[in-house]
Amino acid sequence: MPNKLTVVIIGCGNVAWHLAEKLSSLKKYNIYVVNHKENLILEKFSSKLKCVTLVDPNFELLPTGADFYFFCVKDEFIKSTSSKLGISNPRAVFLHTSGSVDIKGLEGNVKHKAVFYPLQSFSINTKVDWKKIPILIEANSKPLEKLVTELGIQFSNDVTPVNSKQRLLYHLAAVFVNNFSNYLYSAADDLLKTEKLQFKLLLPLIENTYNKLQVLTPLEAQTGPAKRKDNVTINKHLNLLEKNKELTELYKLITKQIEKQ
Amino acid sequence: MPNKLTVVIIGCGNVAWHLAEKLSSLKKYNIYVVNHKENLILEKFSSKLKCVTLVDPNFELLPTGADFYFFCVKDEFIKSTSSKLGISNPRAVFLHTSGSVDIKGLEGNVKHKAVFYPLQSFSINTKVDWKKIPILIEANSKPLEKLVTELGIQFSNDVTPVNSKQRLLYHLAAVFVNNFSNYLYSAADDLLKTEKLQFKLLLPLIENTYNKLQVLTPLEAQTGPAKRKDNVTINKHLNLLEKNKELTELYKLITKQIEKQ
Repeated sequence: MPNKLTVVIIGCGNVAWHLAEKLSSLKKYNIYVVNHKENLILEKFSSKLKCVTLVDPNFELLPTGADFYFFCVKDEFIKSTSSKLGISNPRAVFLHTSGSVDIKGLEGNVKHKAVFYPLQSFSINTKVDWKKIPILIEANSKPLEKLVTELGIQFSNDVTPVNSKQRLLYHLAAVFVNNFSNYLYSAADDLLKTEKLQFKLLLPLIENTYNKLQVLTPLEAQTGPAKRKDNVTINKHLNLLEKNKELTELYKLITKQIEKQ
Repeated sequence: MPNKLTVVIIGCGNVAWHLAEKLSSLKKYNIYVVNHKENLILEKFSSKLKCVTLVDPNFELLPTGADFYFFCVKDEFIKSTSSKLGISNPRAVFLHTSGSVDIKGLEGNVKHKAVFYPLQSFSINTKVDWKKIPILIEANSKPLEKLVTELGIQFSNDVTPVNSKQRLLYHLAAVFVNNFSNYLYSAADDLLKTEKLQFKLLLPLIENTYNKLQVLTPLEAQTGPAKRKDNVTINKHLNLLEKNKELTELYKLITKQIEKQ
Protein backbone atom coordinates (compact mmCIF):
# COMPACT_ATOMS: atom_id res chain seq x y z
CA MET A 1 0.00 0.00 0.00
CA PRO A 2 2.40 2.71 -1.19
CA ASN A 3 0.12 5.68 -0.54
CA LYS A 4 -0.62 4.92 3.05
CA LEU A 5 1.14 6.75 5.83
CA THR A 6 2.22 4.82 8.88
CA VAL A 7 1.19 5.83 12.40
CA VAL A 8 2.67 4.33 15.54
CA ILE A 9 0.68 4.82 18.74
CA ILE A 10 2.61 4.24 21.95
CA GLY A 11 0.31 3.35 24.82
CA CYS A 12 -3.05 1.60 24.97
CA GLY A 13 -5.17 3.81 27.23
CA ASN A 14 -8.28 5.89 26.55
CA VAL A 15 -6.67 8.44 24.24
CA ALA A 16 -4.75 5.72 22.34
CA TRP A 17 -8.00 3.84 21.81
CA HIS A 18 -10.00 6.76 20.41
CA LEU A 19 -7.09 7.94 18.28
CA ALA A 20 -6.60 4.45 16.82
CA GLU A 21 -10.32 4.00 16.27
CA LYS A 22 -10.62 7.27 14.35
CA LEU A 23 -7.44 6.72 12.30
CA SER A 24 -8.59 3.21 11.51
CA SER A 25 -11.95 4.52 10.24
CA LEU A 26 -10.15 6.93 7.89
CA LYS A 27 -8.62 3.95 6.01
CA LYS A 28 -5.60 6.01 5.01
CA TYR A 29 -3.10 4.84 7.59
CA ASN A 30 -1.18 1.72 8.56
CA ILE A 31 -1.55 1.68 12.33
CA TYR A 32 0.70 0.11 14.95
CA VAL A 33 -0.24 0.14 18.63
CA VAL A 34 2.74 -0.50 20.88
CA ASN A 35 2.82 -1.08 24.61
CA HIS A 36 5.79 -1.79 26.86
CA LYS A 37 4.02 -4.70 28.55
CA GLU A 38 1.19 -7.15 28.04
CA ASN A 39 -2.26 -5.65 28.50
CA LEU A 40 -5.56 -7.44 27.89
CA ILE A 41 -6.91 -4.36 26.15
CA LEU A 42 -4.47 -4.88 23.25
CA GLU A 43 -6.69 -7.74 22.14
CA LYS A 44 -9.54 -5.23 21.75
CA PHE A 45 -7.38 -3.04 19.51
CA SER A 46 -6.41 -5.90 17.20
CA SER A 47 -9.85 -7.49 17.06
CA LYS A 48 -12.02 -4.36 16.73
CA LEU A 49 -9.75 -2.06 14.74
CA LYS A 50 -7.58 -2.47 11.70
CA CYS A 51 -4.22 -2.21 13.42
CA VAL A 52 -1.15 -4.23 14.42
CA THR A 53 -0.42 -4.53 18.14
CA LEU A 54 3.05 -5.04 19.61
CA VAL A 55 4.34 -5.68 23.10
CA ASP A 56 7.79 -4.13 23.08
CA PRO A 57 9.40 -3.59 26.53
CA ASN A 58 12.45 -1.67 25.23
CA PHE A 59 10.89 -0.14 22.12
CA GLU A 60 13.25 -2.06 19.83
CA LEU A 61 10.74 -3.84 17.60
CA LEU A 62 8.44 -1.05 16.50
CA PRO A 63 8.69 0.35 12.96
CA THR A 64 11.54 2.87 12.69
CA GLY A 65 10.37 4.37 9.39
CA ALA A 66 6.84 5.50 10.35
CA ASP A 67 5.49 8.99 9.64
CA PHE A 68 3.78 9.80 12.96
CA TYR A 69 4.60 8.60 16.47
CA PHE A 70 1.90 9.42 19.02
CA PHE A 71 3.02 9.19 22.63
CA CYS A 72 -0.23 8.41 24.43
CA VAL A 73 1.47 7.54 27.70
CA LYS A 74 1.13 9.06 31.15
CA ASP A 75 2.61 12.57 31.36
CA GLU A 76 5.54 11.38 33.46
CA PHE A 77 6.63 8.87 30.80
CA ILE A 78 6.57 11.15 27.74
CA LYS A 79 10.19 12.20 28.19
CA SER A 80 11.64 8.77 28.91
CA THR A 81 9.63 6.98 26.24
CA SER A 82 10.32 9.48 23.46
CA SER A 83 14.06 9.43 24.23
CA LYS A 84 14.25 5.65 23.75
CA LEU A 85 13.02 5.34 20.17
CA GLY A 86 15.53 4.83 17.36
CA ILE A 87 14.01 6.39 14.24
CA SER A 88 15.23 5.97 10.66
CA ASN A 89 12.75 8.25 8.84
CA PRO A 90 14.09 11.84 8.80
CA ARG A 91 10.54 13.13 8.19
CA ALA A 92 9.12 11.33 11.23
CA VAL A 93 6.98 13.42 13.59
CA PHE A 94 6.80 12.85 17.35
CA LEU A 95 3.53 14.01 18.96
CA HIS A 96 2.26 13.89 22.49
CA THR A 97 -1.40 14.25 23.45
CA SER A 98 -1.14 15.86 26.88
CA GLY A 99 -2.71 19.12 28.00
CA SER A 100 -0.16 19.90 30.67
CA VAL A 101 3.24 18.85 29.24
CA ASP A 102 5.39 21.35 27.35
CA ILE A 103 6.27 20.48 23.75
CA LYS A 104 9.86 20.35 25.00
CA GLY A 105 8.88 17.29 27.01
CA LEU A 106 9.31 15.31 23.78
CA GLU A 107 12.88 14.05 23.41
CA GLY A 108 14.53 11.76 20.85
CA ASN A 109 16.58 12.09 17.67
CA VAL A 110 13.86 13.51 15.44
CA LYS A 111 13.57 16.99 14.00
CA HIS A 112 9.79 17.28 13.97
CA LYS A 113 7.94 17.56 17.27
CA ALA A 114 4.34 18.49 17.91
CA VAL A 115 1.42 18.33 20.30
CA PHE A 116 -2.05 17.02 19.48
CA TYR A 117 -4.26 17.63 22.52
CA PRO A 118 -7.97 16.80 22.28
CA LEU A 119 -9.78 18.99 24.84
CA GLN A 120 -12.02 16.23 26.11
CA SER A 121 -12.20 13.57 28.82
CA PHE A 122 -12.11 10.16 27.13
CA SER A 123 -13.30 6.81 28.35
CA ILE A 124 -12.53 3.68 26.36
CA ASN A 125 -16.11 2.43 26.68
CA THR A 126 -17.81 5.60 25.49
CA LYS A 127 -18.30 6.67 21.89
CA VAL A 128 -16.89 10.05 21.04
CA ASP A 129 -17.92 12.48 18.35
CA TRP A 130 -14.47 13.66 17.25
CA LYS A 131 -15.96 16.34 14.97
CA LYS A 132 -17.09 18.30 18.04
CA ILE A 133 -13.89 17.94 20.08
CA PRO A 134 -11.53 20.93 19.91
CA ILE A 135 -7.96 19.84 19.14
CA LEU A 136 -5.23 22.13 20.45
CA ILE A 137 -2.08 21.71 18.42
CA GLU A 138 1.49 22.97 18.64
CA ALA A 139 4.47 22.31 16.38
CA ASN A 140 8.15 23.22 16.42
CA SER A 141 7.97 24.70 12.90
CA LYS A 142 5.42 26.47 10.70
CA PRO A 143 5.39 23.74 7.98
CA LEU A 144 4.83 21.13 10.68
CA GLU A 145 2.00 23.22 12.18
CA LYS A 146 0.35 23.08 8.75
CA LEU A 147 0.85 19.31 8.52
CA VAL A 148 -0.54 18.68 12.02
CA THR A 149 -3.49 20.97 11.26
CA GLU A 150 -4.22 18.87 8.16
CA LEU A 151 -4.12 15.77 10.32
CA GLY A 152 -6.33 17.44 12.93
CA ILE A 153 -9.08 18.51 10.56
CA GLN A 154 -9.60 14.89 9.60
CA PHE A 155 -10.70 14.45 13.21
CA SER A 156 -12.36 17.70 14.19
CA ASN A 157 -14.05 20.85 12.94
CA ASP A 158 -12.10 22.82 15.52
CA VAL A 159 -8.29 22.67 15.30
CA THR A 160 -6.57 25.53 17.12
CA PRO A 161 -2.84 26.26 17.36
CA VAL A 162 -1.79 27.32 20.87
CA ASN A 163 1.54 27.47 22.67
CA SER A 164 2.40 25.27 25.66
CA LYS A 165 1.43 27.88 28.24
CA GLN A 166 -1.93 28.50 26.60
CA ARG A 167 -2.57 24.78 26.40
CA LEU A 168 -1.85 24.45 30.12
CA LEU A 169 -4.33 27.26 30.76
CA TYR A 170 -7.01 25.38 28.79
CA HIS A 171 -6.09 22.27 30.77
CA LEU A 172 -6.52 24.18 34.05
CA ALA A 173 -9.84 25.65 32.87
CA ALA A 174 -10.93 22.12 31.91
CA VAL A 175 -10.20 20.95 35.46
CA PHE A 176 -12.53 23.67 36.78
CA VAL A 177 -15.42 22.90 34.42
CA ASN A 178 -15.07 19.13 34.35
CA ASN A 179 -13.33 17.67 37.43
CA PHE A 180 -14.41 20.36 39.88
CA SER A 181 -18.01 20.59 38.63
CA ASN A 182 -18.19 16.84 38.84
CA TYR A 183 -17.04 17.08 42.45
CA LEU A 184 -19.95 19.45 43.14
CA TYR A 185 -22.30 16.84 41.64
CA SER A 186 -20.76 14.31 44.01
CA ALA A 187 -21.30 16.65 46.95
CA ALA A 188 -24.96 17.09 45.95
CA ASP A 189 -25.35 13.32 45.66
CA ASP A 190 -23.86 12.83 49.15
CA LEU A 191 -26.20 15.44 50.63
CA LEU A 192 -29.30 13.92 49.04
CA LYS A 193 -28.31 10.43 50.21
CA THR A 194 -28.54 11.55 53.85
CA GLU A 195 -32.32 11.64 53.35
CA LYS A 196 -32.43 8.88 50.71
CA LEU A 197 -33.33 11.44 48.05
CA GLN A 198 -32.60 11.00 44.36
CA PHE A 199 -29.73 12.65 42.51
CA LYS A 200 -31.40 11.95 39.18
CA LEU A 201 -34.01 14.63 39.93
CA LEU A 202 -31.18 17.16 39.45
CA LEU A 203 -30.29 16.03 35.94
CA PRO A 204 -32.71 18.37 34.09
CA LEU A 205 -31.30 21.29 36.09
CA ILE A 206 -27.72 20.30 35.23
CA GLU A 207 -28.70 20.04 31.57
CA ASN A 208 -30.29 23.49 31.81
CA THR A 209 -27.15 24.93 33.43
CA TYR A 210 -25.20 23.71 30.40
CA ASN A 211 -27.79 24.87 27.87
CA LYS A 212 -27.71 28.44 29.20
CA LEU A 213 -24.03 28.68 28.21
CA GLN A 214 -25.06 28.48 24.57
CA VAL A 215 -26.57 31.97 24.84
CA LEU A 216 -25.17 33.61 27.97
CA THR A 217 -21.70 34.08 29.45
CA PRO A 218 -21.28 32.24 32.78
CA LEU A 219 -21.28 35.60 34.55
CA GLU A 220 -24.61 36.53 32.94
CA ALA A 221 -26.01 33.10 33.75
CA GLN A 222 -25.19 33.33 37.47
CA THR A 223 -28.24 33.10 39.73
CA GLY A 224 -28.99 31.85 43.23
CA PRO A 225 -28.92 32.98 46.86
CA ALA A 226 -25.23 34.03 46.80
CA LYS A 227 -25.74 36.18 43.71
CA ARG A 228 -28.74 37.97 45.17
CA LYS A 229 -27.13 38.11 48.64
CA ASP A 230 -30.12 36.29 50.13
CA ASN A 231 -28.79 35.65 53.62
CA VAL A 232 -31.98 34.07 54.88
CA THR A 233 -31.67 31.21 52.38
CA ILE A 234 -27.88 31.00 52.79
CA ASN A 235 -28.34 30.53 56.53
CA LYS A 236 -30.98 27.84 56.01
CA HIS A 237 -28.46 26.00 53.80
CA LEU A 238 -25.65 26.41 56.32
CA ASN A 239 -27.89 25.02 59.07
CA LEU A 240 -28.61 21.99 56.93
CA LEU A 241 -24.87 21.53 56.28
CA GLU A 242 -24.03 21.89 59.97
CA LYS A 243 -22.70 18.36 60.44
CA ASN A 244 -20.63 18.39 57.25
CA LYS A 245 -17.52 20.47 57.85
CA GLU A 246 -16.05 19.98 54.38
CA LEU A 247 -19.14 21.03 52.46
CA THR A 248 -19.73 23.92 54.86
CA GLU A 249 -16.24 25.21 54.06
CA LEU A 250 -16.82 24.77 50.34
CA TYR A 251 -20.27 26.39 50.48
CA LYS A 252 -18.94 29.41 52.37
CA LEU A 253 -15.97 29.89 50.07
CA ILE A 254 -17.92 29.74 46.79
CA THR A 255 -20.73 31.87 48.23
CA LYS A 256 -18.19 34.52 49.30
CA GLN A 257 -16.62 34.52 45.84
CA ILE A 258 -19.96 34.78 44.03
CA GLU A 259 -20.99 37.67 46.31
CA LYS A 260 -17.85 39.53 45.21
CA GLN A 261 -18.50 39.05 41.47
CA MET B 1 -67.48 28.60 31.42
CA PRO B 2 -68.87 26.47 34.23
CA ASN B 3 -66.34 23.65 33.99
CA LYS B 4 -63.26 25.77 34.17
CA LEU B 5 -61.33 26.11 37.40
CA THR B 6 -59.92 29.50 38.29
CA VAL B 7 -56.26 30.05 39.06
CA VAL B 8 -54.86 33.26 40.53
CA ILE B 9 -51.12 33.78 40.17
CA ILE B 10 -49.63 36.41 42.47
CA GLY B 11 -46.39 37.82 41.10
CA CYS B 12 -45.12 38.31 37.56
CA GLY B 13 -41.57 36.94 37.60
CA ASN B 14 -39.99 33.95 35.87
CA VAL B 15 -41.92 31.24 37.69
CA ALA B 16 -45.22 33.15 37.34
CA TRP B 17 -44.61 33.45 33.61
CA HIS B 18 -43.89 29.77 32.95
CA LEU B 19 -46.72 28.66 35.22
CA ALA B 20 -49.19 30.97 33.46
CA GLU B 21 -47.92 29.93 30.04
CA LYS B 22 -48.38 26.25 30.76
CA LEU B 23 -51.79 26.68 32.43
CA SER B 24 -52.89 28.83 29.53
CA SER B 25 -51.89 26.11 27.05
CA LEU B 26 -53.97 23.53 28.93
CA LYS B 27 -57.13 25.56 28.15
CA LYS B 28 -58.85 24.30 31.30
CA TYR B 29 -58.34 27.27 33.57
CA ASN B 30 -59.41 30.87 33.91
CA ILE B 31 -56.18 32.61 34.78
CA TYR B 32 -55.61 35.87 36.69
CA VAL B 33 -52.14 37.32 37.10
CA VAL B 34 -51.96 39.83 39.94
CA ASN B 35 -49.13 42.13 40.91
CA HIS B 36 -48.96 44.68 43.71
CA LYS B 37 -47.58 47.35 41.38
CA GLU B 38 -47.31 48.28 37.71
CA ASN B 39 -44.78 46.21 35.77
CA LEU B 40 -44.18 46.39 32.02
CA ILE B 41 -44.01 42.62 31.87
CA LEU B 42 -47.73 42.38 32.68
CA GLU B 43 -48.40 43.53 29.15
CA LYS B 44 -46.58 40.41 27.90
CA PHE B 45 -48.83 38.19 30.03
CA SER B 46 -52.01 39.71 28.69
CA SER B 47 -50.91 39.91 25.08
CA LYS B 48 -49.18 36.51 24.71
CA LEU B 49 -51.23 34.35 27.06
CA LYS B 50 -54.94 33.90 27.65
CA CYS B 51 -55.11 35.54 31.06
CA VAL B 52 -56.41 38.60 32.89
CA THR B 53 -53.83 40.86 34.53
CA LEU B 54 -54.50 43.04 37.56
CA VAL B 55 -52.49 45.64 39.41
CA ASP B 56 -53.74 45.40 42.97
CA PRO B 57 -51.59 47.11 45.65
CA ASN B 58 -53.58 45.84 48.64
CA PHE B 59 -54.85 42.58 47.12
CA GLU B 60 -58.46 43.77 47.40
CA LEU B 61 -59.58 43.39 43.80
CA LEU B 62 -58.50 39.89 42.92
CA PRO B 63 -61.13 37.12 42.70
CA THR B 64 -62.00 35.77 46.15
CA GLY B 65 -63.67 32.61 44.86
CA ALA B 66 -60.81 31.06 42.85
CA ASP B 67 -59.68 27.44 43.21
CA PHE B 68 -55.91 27.86 43.28
CA TYR B 69 -53.81 30.80 44.47
CA PHE B 70 -50.15 30.52 43.48
CA PHE B 71 -47.79 32.79 45.44
CA CYS B 72 -44.95 33.31 42.98
CA VAL B 73 -43.38 36.12 44.98
CA LYS B 74 -39.94 36.42 46.55
CA ASP B 75 -39.48 34.10 49.53
CA GLU B 76 -39.55 36.96 51.99
CA PHE B 77 -43.01 38.08 50.83
CA ILE B 78 -44.81 34.72 50.91
CA LYS B 79 -45.93 35.16 54.51
CA SER B 80 -47.07 38.78 54.25
CA THR B 81 -48.78 38.35 50.89
CA SER B 82 -50.66 35.18 51.79
CA SER B 83 -51.89 36.70 55.05
CA LYS B 84 -53.49 39.64 53.22
CA LEU B 85 -55.90 37.81 50.93
CA GLY B 86 -59.60 37.63 51.84
CA ILE B 87 -60.94 34.39 50.35
CA SER B 88 -64.58 33.37 49.99
CA ASN B 89 -64.18 29.86 48.52
CA PRO B 90 -63.80 27.30 51.35
CA ARG B 91 -62.15 24.87 48.90
CA ALA B 92 -59.49 27.39 47.83
CA VAL B 93 -55.90 26.15 47.84
CA PHE B 94 -52.91 28.37 48.61
CA LEU B 95 -49.63 27.21 47.03
CA HIS B 96 -46.15 28.62 47.05
CA THR B 97 -43.46 27.67 44.57
CA SER B 98 -40.29 28.09 46.64
CA GLY B 99 -37.62 25.47 47.31
CA SER B 100 -36.50 26.90 50.60
CA VAL B 101 -39.64 28.09 52.41
CA ASP B 102 -41.52 25.79 54.78
CA ILE B 103 -45.15 25.03 53.93
CA LYS B 104 -45.95 26.83 57.19
CA GLY B 105 -44.72 30.02 55.54
CA LEU B 106 -48.17 30.23 53.92
CA GLU B 107 -50.61 32.15 56.08
CA GLY B 108 -54.18 33.33 55.53
CA ASN B 109 -57.70 32.13 56.31
CA VAL B 110 -57.78 29.04 54.06
CA LYS B 111 -57.78 25.40 55.09
CA HIS B 112 -55.83 24.01 52.14
CA LYS B 113 -52.15 24.82 51.81
CA ALA B 114 -49.57 23.26 49.55
CA VAL B 115 -46.20 23.66 47.84
CA PHE B 116 -45.56 23.30 44.12
CA TYR B 117 -41.79 23.60 43.58
CA PRO B 118 -40.40 23.04 40.07
CA LEU B 119 -36.77 21.93 40.47
CA GLN B 120 -35.44 24.15 37.72
CA SER B 121 -33.95 27.56 37.14
CA PHE B 122 -36.35 29.60 35.02
CA SER B 123 -35.77 32.57 32.82
CA ILE B 124 -38.68 34.42 31.27
CA ASN B 125 -37.02 34.51 27.87
CA THR B 126 -36.20 30.81 27.65
CA LYS B 127 -38.58 28.04 26.60
CA VAL B 128 -38.97 25.28 29.13
CA ASP B 129 -39.95 21.67 28.63
CA TRP B 130 -42.21 21.20 31.65
CA LYS B 131 -42.54 17.46 31.04
CA LYS B 132 -38.89 16.99 32.05
CA ILE B 133 -38.92 19.25 35.11
CA PRO B 134 -39.34 17.43 38.44
CA ILE B 135 -42.06 19.02 40.58
CA LEU B 136 -41.67 18.60 44.33
CA ILE B 137 -45.01 18.91 46.03
CA GLU B 138 -46.22 19.07 49.62
CA ALA B 139 -49.73 19.44 51.02
CA ASN B 140 -51.26 19.82 54.46
CA SER B 141 -53.62 16.85 53.93
CA LYS B 142 -53.61 13.56 52.01
CA PRO B 143 -56.64 14.48 49.81
CA LEU B 144 -54.91 17.76 48.93
CA GLU B 145 -51.67 15.91 48.12
CA LYS B 146 -53.70 13.87 45.62
CA LEU B 147 -55.25 17.00 44.12
CA VAL B 148 -51.90 18.78 43.79
CA THR B 149 -50.37 15.65 42.26
CA GLU B 150 -53.15 15.65 39.67
CA LEU B 151 -52.36 19.27 38.92
CA GLY B 152 -48.62 18.50 38.75
CA ILE B 153 -48.91 15.63 36.28
CA GLN B 154 -50.50 18.00 33.81
CA PHE B 155 -47.14 19.77 33.83
CA SER B 156 -44.55 17.07 34.38
CA ASN B 157 -43.80 13.36 34.14
CA ASP B 158 -42.08 13.58 37.50
CA VAL B 159 -44.19 14.75 40.45
CA THR B 160 -42.70 13.79 43.83
CA PRO B 161 -44.15 14.44 47.30
CA VAL B 162 -41.47 15.57 49.78
CA ASN B 163 -41.61 17.33 53.13
CA SER B 164 -40.25 20.85 53.73
CA LYS B 165 -36.87 19.63 55.02
CA GLN B 166 -36.37 17.33 52.04
CA ARG B 167 -37.33 20.11 49.66
CA LEU B 168 -34.75 22.40 51.27
CA LEU B 169 -32.15 19.64 50.81
CA TYR B 170 -33.01 19.44 47.09
CA HIS B 171 -32.76 23.21 46.95
CA LEU B 172 -29.31 23.11 48.57
CA ALA B 173 -28.17 20.33 46.21
CA ALA B 174 -29.49 22.43 43.31
CA VAL B 175 -27.30 25.33 44.46
CA PHE B 176 -24.26 23.04 44.28
CA VAL B 177 -24.99 21.66 40.82
CA ASN B 178 -26.36 24.82 39.25
CA ASN B 179 -25.14 28.04 40.94
CA PHE B 180 -21.79 26.68 42.13
CA SER B 181 -20.96 24.82 38.90
CA ASN B 182 -21.83 27.95 37.01
CA TYR B 183 -19.38 29.85 39.20
CA LEU B 184 -16.67 27.36 38.20
CA TYR B 185 -17.51 28.08 34.54
CA SER B 186 -17.11 31.76 35.33
CA ALA B 187 -13.74 31.09 36.95
CA ALA B 188 -12.61 29.14 33.86
CA ASP B 189 -13.79 31.99 31.63
CA ASP B 190 -11.83 34.53 33.72
CA LEU B 191 -8.67 32.40 33.53
CA LEU B 192 -8.91 31.96 29.77
CA LYS B 193 -9.49 35.68 29.25
CA THR B 194 -6.07 36.48 30.76
CA GLU B 195 -4.59 35.02 27.55
CA LYS B 196 -7.51 35.97 25.30
CA LEU B 197 -8.47 32.31 24.97
CA GLN B 198 -11.96 31.11 24.16
CA PHE B 199 -14.40 29.73 26.72
CA LYS B 200 -16.50 28.17 23.96
CA LEU B 201 -13.80 25.55 23.38
CA LEU B 202 -14.81 24.09 26.75
CA LEU B 203 -18.47 23.58 25.83
CA PRO B 204 -18.07 20.04 24.40
CA LEU B 205 -16.25 19.03 27.60
CA ILE B 206 -19.03 20.49 29.77
CA GLU B 207 -21.60 18.63 27.69
CA ASN B 208 -19.59 15.44 28.12
CA THR B 209 -19.39 15.98 31.91
CA TYR B 210 -23.19 16.10 31.94
CA ASN B 211 -23.63 13.14 29.60
CA LYS B 212 -21.51 10.88 31.82
CA LEU B 213 -24.07 11.31 34.61
CA GLN B 214 -26.59 9.40 32.52
CA VAL B 215 -24.58 6.21 33.06
CA LEU B 216 -22.23 6.81 36.01
CA THR B 217 -22.60 8.19 39.53
CA PRO B 218 -20.63 11.43 40.03
CA LEU B 219 -18.19 9.52 42.23
CA GLU B 220 -17.58 6.98 39.44
CA ALA B 221 -17.24 9.77 36.88
CA GLN B 222 -14.55 11.63 38.86
CA THR B 223 -11.25 11.98 36.97
CA GLY B 224 -8.40 14.47 36.84
CA PRO B 225 -5.14 15.35 38.60
CA ALA B 226 -6.70 15.55 42.10
CA LYS B 227 -8.34 12.14 41.75
CA ARG B 228 -5.10 10.48 40.63
CA LYS B 229 -3.03 12.52 43.10
CA ASP B 230 -0.90 13.85 40.25
CA ASN B 231 1.09 16.46 42.13
CA VAL B 232 3.23 17.42 39.16
CA THR B 233 0.18 18.65 37.24
CA ILE B 234 -1.42 20.15 40.37
CA ASN B 235 1.73 22.22 40.95
CA LYS B 236 1.79 23.38 37.33
CA HIS B 237 -1.80 24.58 37.79
CA LEU B 238 -1.02 26.31 41.08
CA ASN B 239 1.92 28.10 39.45
CA LEU B 240 -0.38 29.34 36.74
CA LEU B 241 -2.90 30.53 39.37
CA GLU B 242 -0.21 32.27 41.39
CA LYS B 243 -1.55 35.78 40.91
CA ASN B 244 -5.14 34.85 41.60
CA LYS B 245 -5.57 34.36 45.34
CA GLU B 246 -9.27 33.53 45.21
CA LEU B 247 -9.01 30.81 42.60
CA THR B 248 -5.88 29.42 44.25
CA GLU B 249 -7.87 29.02 47.48
CA LEU B 250 -10.76 27.40 45.62
CA TYR B 251 -8.44 25.10 43.62
CA LYS B 252 -6.65 23.93 46.77
CA LEU B 253 -9.85 23.32 48.69
CA ILE B 254 -11.62 21.27 46.00
CA THR B 255 -8.41 19.36 45.20
CA LYS B 256 -7.99 18.47 48.88
CA GLN B 257 -11.59 17.27 49.08
CA ILE B 258 -11.34 15.18 45.90
CA GLU B 259 -8.11 13.59 47.16
CA LYS B 260 -9.99 12.47 50.27
CA GLN B 261 -12.85 10.84 48.35
